[in-house]
Amino acid sequence: MTTEPTDLRYPERATIRDVAERAGVSIGTASKALNDNGRLKRETRDKVIAAAQELGFRPNAMAQSLHRSKSMTVGILSTDSFGRFSFPIVEALEERLAEHGIAVFMCNATDDPAREKQHLDQLLGKRIDGLVVTARRSDMRPAIAVPGKSMPVIYVFSQTDDPDALCLVPDDFGGAVLGVEHLIASGRKRIAHLTGPDTFEAVTLRNRGYRAALGKAGLPEIAGYVRYGKWSEASGRDAVDALFDGKSEVPDALFCGNDQIARGATDALRERGLRVPQDVAVVGFDNWDVMALAARPPLTSVDLNLRALGRAAGERLIAMIAGERFKGVERLPCSLVVRQSSDPTQT
Amino acid sequence: MTTEPTDLRYPERATIRDVAERAGVSIGTASKALNDNGRLKRETRDKVIAAAQELGFRPNAMAQSLHRSKSMTVGILSTDSFGRFSFPIVEALEERLAEHGIAVFMCNATDDPAREKQHLDQLLGKRIDGLVVTARRSDMRPAIAVPGKSMPVIYVFSQTDDPDALCLVPDDFGGAVLGVEHLIASGRKRIAHLTGPDTFEAVTLRNRGYRAALGKAGLPEIAGYVRYGKWSEASGRDAVDALFDGKSEVPDALFCGNDQIARGATDALRERGLRVPQDVAVVGFDNWDVMALAARPPLTSVDLNLRALGRAAGERLIAMIAGERFKGVERLPCSLVVRQSSDPTQT
Repeated sequence: MTTEPTDLRYPERATIRDVAERAGVSIGTASKALNDNGRLKRETRDKVIAAAQELGFRPNAMAQSLHRSKSMTVGILSTDSFGRFSFPIVEALEERLAEHGIAVFMCNATDDPAREKQHLDQLLGKRIDGLVVTARRSDMRPAIAVPGKSMPVIYVFSQTDDPDALCLVPDDFGGAVLGVEHLIASGRKRIAHLTGPDTFEAVTLRNRGYRAALGKAGLPEIAGYVRYGKWSEASGRDAVDALFDGKSEVPDALFCGNDQIARGATDALRERGLRVPQDVAVVGFDNWDVMALAARPPLTSVDLNLRALGRAAGERLIAMIAGERFKGVERLPCSLVVRQSSDPTQT
Repeated sequence: MTTEPTDLRYPERATIRDVAERAGVSIGTASKALNDNGRLKRETRDKVIAAAQELGFRPNAMAQSLHRSKSMTVGILSTDSFGRFSFPIVEALEERLAEHGIAVFMCNATDDPAREKQHLDQLLGKRIDGLVVTARRSDMRPAIAVPGKSMPVIYVFSQTDDPDALCLVPDDFGGAVLGVEHLIASGRKRIAHLTGPDTFEAVTLRNRGYRAALGKAGLPEIAGYVRYGKWSEASGRDAVDALFDGKSEVPDALFCGNDQIARGATDALRERGLRVPQDVAVVGFDNWDVMALAARPPLTSVDLNLRALGRAAGERLIAMIAGERFKGVERLPCSLVVRQSSDPTQT
């Protein structure tokens, strides 16, 4: 089952990178050939133009304005150190921008406002065309103060209270609905929700999605079945103890706020002699391969589609550099990866 | 117990960043004040000079040559996608370079030679002053072809067969000696080694370190006690089954090639009713917090000091940009982080 839609909302078009690859030349050479500047052999120029025609490549106005009087560089600023959530975003963003010949400066501010300001000064000194702000968590942060507001700024996996800012985040609510509806579709009726600290926006939204899915299916919310805790395996084990110790009626499914909680829960169920998924189905969140695949059995999990988020940010940034303007919070869809912890027919 | 020496071999000196921080100005402003160029208020300039004097900052020849006719940018090229090994390296490298006012372009070639070449062309087009090549694994890769060989290139957590290249990698041999000597010091005499595929250089070197430490202590190598497998928890569990099933004499310690193997081994021991560390001590490798801290009990592990590796690469690159030359493979020290899996007195 695939975890990554090839693109969420931006149709693929042939890029200069595709043309360069097909012609067997560098992006720079392809650009020179198509813009009829720079010194190139006639043969090379012809080869590039032929490749562009075969691929239906049209240097559009956006691309042309992009290449005029721009530094062709953007900055990506992680405000609280890069981690497993930001890596895939940054990687995909960099890939998409590289296809347009845009290079990425990477800066890491590690939760230090003074450092963040120095990085920003440095990036502005490099005359970057745009800035992407990302974080370990998709929660709210102060807006980045960019002089004159003329430079495009996008917040990815990160939000700010500036109403004019564009923020791209995963749809936590929709992801939770996916996970819980999957459990309901397999016949589960007593679904508990084991999640992280209630100070996280993601916890609130996933909890709402869980309740919305129960409500839509006409299933009751059972007292004590939402358990807040830490984002840890130990927290998942503790929640299982609390839900099962000395209880006559117990859950037939656990919808977990992340994969670590789900993994801890799965271990605790196994150690009680309960079978996953036959006795209790388990669904995690994040689809973090290290956790999801190492669990016994491997975890069904909601995928945040972080690479798609990074690519979408790249597309938006390119459009904004070319003059378009976007604002508001966009929540991009999650998807569900089904494995044995909820479906015994999976191998 | 600290996992990260503040610096492995390069003494700390006041940088322009320290001066800027103390004076409460940006690095750019501090640089202008110290180099007596750009338009600044007299008061600002005096404040920076006072801060520089208080910190004993001397703009040395290296820094001055650095700031003359340089782009003040370097590229970092990951040849097989960024991951948990390269991110701490890249973060620390970027931090160290930012202190010198150098910005980092990040490129990811994801195992694709054509893409790597395009990235390199793009970086050269940006007139970068230097290049750092990193990878998911510290194994050998082809040398990067830089025209003219005049631009400094450093391989970090990555090696090449070019004898003129500088490669910085962790000391896997020394790290293994640390781990095994720790087990021997706690009285263990039957130490097995559970490791990854023997095609990895790290596996060979860690195995040599294991045998060297046994030899030095006069302990015999026991037949069947070195077990190659995958880098996975399942592989650790399988190795425990092979070592313990129906055996009268069993290991009193397991030295594992990574933390996933160690975690799987720890789970398998617990499920056999054996106590870790009282019956069998376990040591992992990598000190990957996600694995090491979630294991029951938490794992003693050899730390690769990846951030120190990144900082060292930053220092070397700065020196090389200023005209110094280094070559050869340097193996930087690992350290040992002791937790409950080998020491019951740890909390």
